[in-house]
Amino acid sequence: MANNIPALDRLVDEFRKMPSIGMKSAERLAYYILGLEEKEVENLTEAISSAHKNIHQCSVCRNLTENEVCSICQSDRRDRSLICVVEDPRDVAAFERINEYNGLYHVLHGAISPINGIGPDELTIKELLARLNDGTVKEVIMATNPTVEGEATAMYISRLLKPLGIEVSRLAYGIPVGADLEYADEVTLSRALEGRRIL
Amino acid sequence: MANNIPALDRLVDEFRKMPSIGMKSAERLAYYILGLEEKEVENLTEAISSAHKNIHQCSVCRNLTENEVCSICQSDRRDRSLICVVEDPRDVAAFERINEYNGLYHVLHGAISPINGIGPDELTIKELLARLNDGTVKEVIMATNPTVEGEATAMYISRLLKPLGIEVSRLAYGIPVGADLEYADEVTLSRALEGRRIL
Repeated sequence: MANNIPALDRLVDEFRKMPSIGMKSAERLAYYILGLEEKEVENLTEAISSAHKNIHQCSVCRNLTENEVCSICQSDRRDRSLICVVEDPRDVAAFERINEYNGLYHVLHGAISPINGIGPDELTIKELLARLNDGTVKEVIMATNPTVEGEATAMYISRLLKPLGIEVSRLAYGIPVGADLEYADEVTLSRALEGRRIL
Repeated sequence: MANNIPALDRLVDEFRKMPSIGMKSAERLAYYILGLEEKEVENLTEAISSAHKNIHQCSVCRNLTENEVCSICQSDRRDRSLICVVEDPRDVAAFERINEYNGLYHVLHGAISPINGIGPDELTIKELLARLNDGTVKEVIMATNPTVEGEATAMYISRLLKPLGIEVSRLAYGIPVGADLEYADEVTLSRALEGRRIL
């Protein structure tokens, strides 16, 4: 950059490290910072530091929380016989938005992916097994992503759980609601046909 | 949001205030922060605070700098008889990148725009006039944007400067290099025709 302002270059560099922020966006964000009030800058840096400091994994389900145990695991209105296994904390947020699921969660923090060097030990699978010991859990729903990695992870975990006498289910595949059949990919369409239901 | 983590919501809100950052991007940035090392978070917040604290306007040309006077105004290799007037510090960076302009700059920090309540007094026009008093400056190049506001600003300033016996010029309009004539808009094409040069 030709602006000769080291503090600005440094700030642009920090923003460029962020996901999906390119050179132009990083510059725009840096100029945005320069235009803020003193108090607004404090709010921003304080929000960054405190989120990083205070948010960690729930000791039970491994979802993100500011407490030792997250509010979902603490709640006495949740069905403790049901665990929904997801890859990412954002997936928990997605399920909570539909307001229909009343069980617990378990966050794997990834999926098995040999190509990226992620094996079962990098995920929170041991922690999941430990939760199944006392016989409370009757069903585990595999809600990993419908990708090669997500599938492999679901298969791997279901093979571990079946001998324990726990029912393992998988989210339904099919046409997304509101989508156009014409544009559905072949695999999805074939899965939708396979999973058809009598009306 | 349904994640029940106030510190995360607060961080997402802070990112959403940034230019061209929507809900999804703000969430992605927040999760990026959570995944950083302690030291990386410190680097980021420190870069934000120190850029905001140390960068201010050059007392001469109103470009951004960490010093009292910016490096361009301080340089003894610059042609002090020439001032290029731009709207924004980023425009200075753009001119510096072409490595051909050797004069000084003056940053207006905006353009006259009655519809947005920006009159001449909101810009650094007084500061520009003060620089022209000692007779050093022979030519002022109006390099405001080729928009209605930029044009109005260029016209306004040139009317102030002409009585002072200072030459006022304007950047050339024309076809951008590498563009396709077919897609040039009519105004640009008509300006390119007007400004044609004998080969």
